Amino acid sequence: MSIRTLALQCRDAARAVAALSTDAKDAMLRAMADALERDVDAILAANASDMAAATEKGVGEAMLDRLRLDAGRVAGIAAALREVAALPDPVGQLTRRDVRPNGITVERVRMPLGVIAMIYEARPNVTADAAALCLKAGNGVILRGGSEAIRSNTAIAASLHGALEAAGVPSAALTVVSDLRREAMVELLQLNDVVDLAIPRGGEGLIRFVAEHARVPVIKHYKGVCHLYVDADVDEGLALRLLVDGKVSRPSACNSLETLLVHAAVAASFLPRAVETLHARGVALRGDEASRALCEGVAAAGEDDYDTEHLDLALNLRVVGSLDEAIAHIRRHGSDHTEVIATRDPDAAGRFVAALRSAVVMVNASSRFSDGGELGLGAEIGISTTRLHAYGPMGLEALTIERFVVRGEGQTRNIHG
Amino acid sequence: MSIRTLALQCRDAARAVAALSTDAKDAMLRAMADALERDVDAILAANASDMAAATEKGVGEAMLDRLRLDAGRVAGIAAALREVAALPDPVGQLTRRDVRPNGITVERVRMPLGVIAMIYEARPNVTADAAALCLKAGNGVILRGGSEAIRSNTAIAASLHGALEAAGVPSAALTVVSDLRREAMVELLQLNDVVDLAIPRGGEGLIRFVAEHARVPVIKHYKGVCHLYVDADVDEGLALRLLVDGKVSRPSACNSLETLLVHAAVAASFLPRAVETLHARGVALRGDEASRALCEGVAAAGEDDYDTEHLDLALNLRVVGSLDEAIAHIRRHGSDHTEVIATRDPDAAGRFVAALRSAVVMVNASSRFSDGGELGLGAEIGISTTRLHAYGPMGLEALTIERFVVRGEGQTRNIHG
Repeated sequence: MSIRTLALQCRDAARAVAALSTDAKDAMLRAMADALERDVDAILAANASDMAAATEKGVGEAMLDRLRLDAGRVAGIAAALREVAALPDPVGQLTRRDVRPNGITVERVRMPLGVIAMIYEARPNVTADAAALCLKAGNGVILRGGSEAIRSNTAIAASLHGALEAAGVPSAALTVVSDLRREAMVELLQLNDVVDLAIPRGGEGLIRFVAEHARVPVIKHYKGVCHLYVDADVDEGLALRLLVDGKVSRPSACNSLETLLVHAAVAASFLPRAVETLHARGVALRGDEASRALCEGVAAAGEDDYDTEHLDLALNLRVVGSLDEAIAHIRRHGSDHTEVIATRDPDAAGRFVAALRSAVVMVNASSRFSDGGELGLGAEIGISTTRLHAYGPMGLEALTIERFVVRGEGQTRNIHG
Repeated sequence: MSIRTLALQCRDAARAVAALSTDAKDAMLRAMADALERDVDAILAANASDMAAATEKGVGEAMLDRLRLDAGRVAGIAAALREVAALPDPVGQLTRRDVRPNGITVERVRMPLGVIAMIYEARPNVTADAAALCLKAGNGVILRGGSEAIRSNTAIAASLHGALEAAGVPSAALTVVSDLRREAMVELLQLNDVVDLAIPRGGEGLIRFVAEHARVPVIKHYKGVCHLYVDADVDEGLALRLLVDGKVSRPSACNSLETLLVHAAVAASFLPRAVETLHARGVALRGDEASRALCEGVAAAGEDDYDTEHLDLALNLRVVGSLDEAIAHIRRHGSDHTEVIATRDPDAAGRFVAALRSAVVMVNASSRFSDGGELGLGAEIGISTTRLHAYGPMGLEALTIERFVVRGEGQTRNIHG
């Protein structure tokens, strides 16, 4: 079946999803969770085939870990579906209401976007997570995962389809693309009369490929080059906690820190302490001359290092002469994801927030809170660094759009009687 | 100067706009209005040159009228700038605030998008209107108008630049592109690391060209094929008023009606009356067999007619057997712009609103209210038929994005003490 035909079927099926009541959608999502638990053996068998093929291809351990499912992970996916079922339904939400002087009532009401294409790599859990969020927001979803996970993704979708059909929703509302050629992905990304939004999730290469080939709207999440700036007037213990949590607690996450900027006034007291703590945690450090002069065991950083998302126990250091210098550094090297200031000075905090246009700017809190769940959105479908539609962690609302519903009693604009 | 250099200068200048207080922006907009009034002679002289060149090229009267400026129209543009100055500032608006269980405060705050490219055709008033809205929302704006209006646009921009500079904003924040080759437009539309949004305004050809060549996000306004459906249970006088206002009051507007759908139960009484009224107003009619059997002077409509935005005193008719048939017709032929139901039956109204996913759906009100001013947004920069970011009339808020500002007292996610 052609990609276009698949997409058109998804669009038709999406109408059935859009027409479901909240209760019906939530029951469907819980039935999807039940189905995954019931079909766990088939899913694990498919995943074992994927793992064997990937191992044979010599895929690295990090990717194998992302690909791997076990009974616990499948139970985790099912639990995540039940959590989505429990979230408030954004569809039909009245966001504004206004009665105009002529008596017409103008309402803004959330509706589904339509058809969402998810483009992702090895993690099979995305198949269920993204499907759940898209369906809860009343959309159809087209899932184009990586070739390494195709058997797992197909098995998960097959399991979920039963629950869709039981709810009266054609299974095309959740479509897994089995044609994994690049040309097929390009075709999908050009269907701007059918697909309303593409969300790429994965490495920078994948996201650039999607951005370059798409004619459908794309919300990108490039990379998280997140900064912690330690201001001159600071509680050093607080700054150290933010630093360790931001770098060490999960270095592979996009909301982890990549660069520490320290005001020169506190560098001599804070930096040696910070470096000692980071070394004890196994963090490799690179820095500018000023930081290397203050600390042992810090390699020389090149300008490129400051643009790098390490996704690892590695951190860049730089001593800055002022808040403005810190802001200039972040403007130059940042990725619009998440930046943190540690300060006791409300003026410095205000200037930091106002001067930066990253999606999430924090004062005295860990960058690791830059996450849909932590910020109160419920589950997230990604973190947008595109400054349009949604910026930062994207929850269910980001999968809807506000439209206008107008009610009158025969009012006209220019011609009367 | 290259397009890329122009755009980068606009981006740098946009920071100065983003940093202005509301009062400073409003004063700048009022100074822009004053400047236009002061420079009216120079603007009219430039416009006279554009008009002479267009006349020599044999441009049609409709386009000449869009191009033409006179003292009254310049005064109207200045008045529009003062209206934008009086609108509430969306930048800095707090849209949501939440304290999480761990004590961090999560705020959603509106910020400017950054750099907006307006791509438009002959109307020189767009140069000032779009600039005012983009600047008020804290953005830089790149204006790429039609070649017919280049002298007028350049004169308007020159007049406005003085007011920007007086406010400390580099004039690059309002950049008129003078290189009007198509290649230069394509280059602008591909600058996805500099331009945050492109808004095309004009004919379908221009909008398709922009959509096909853009790598920057685009919010399109294709066309308005707007429908009025007259239900079985209806106040026929009310329906007739909506019909006449929707078709006759300004046929060149995108929110004018193109097709009238009438339920078979009221066709015999309503249609002949409607046709008589429309004929008296000079409206040319095409219809299906059922409507032609009921009325004199209705030409035969082909399926293509129902896809046409006439922008003229022309209307398509069709008799439908049910509400569902009306919905199916609109789904097939509509452009997601604006649809109206005339009915006394709340169930029918509810089904019509729920089944259609157009940007604006109205019950017993004229399609001509589908306009930013009429719906309470203040001035509008366009009407989006793209179901992303903004859908329907776009006001100042649509030129901003919500981001996250988080404040804590040292909270961490995983690592404590």
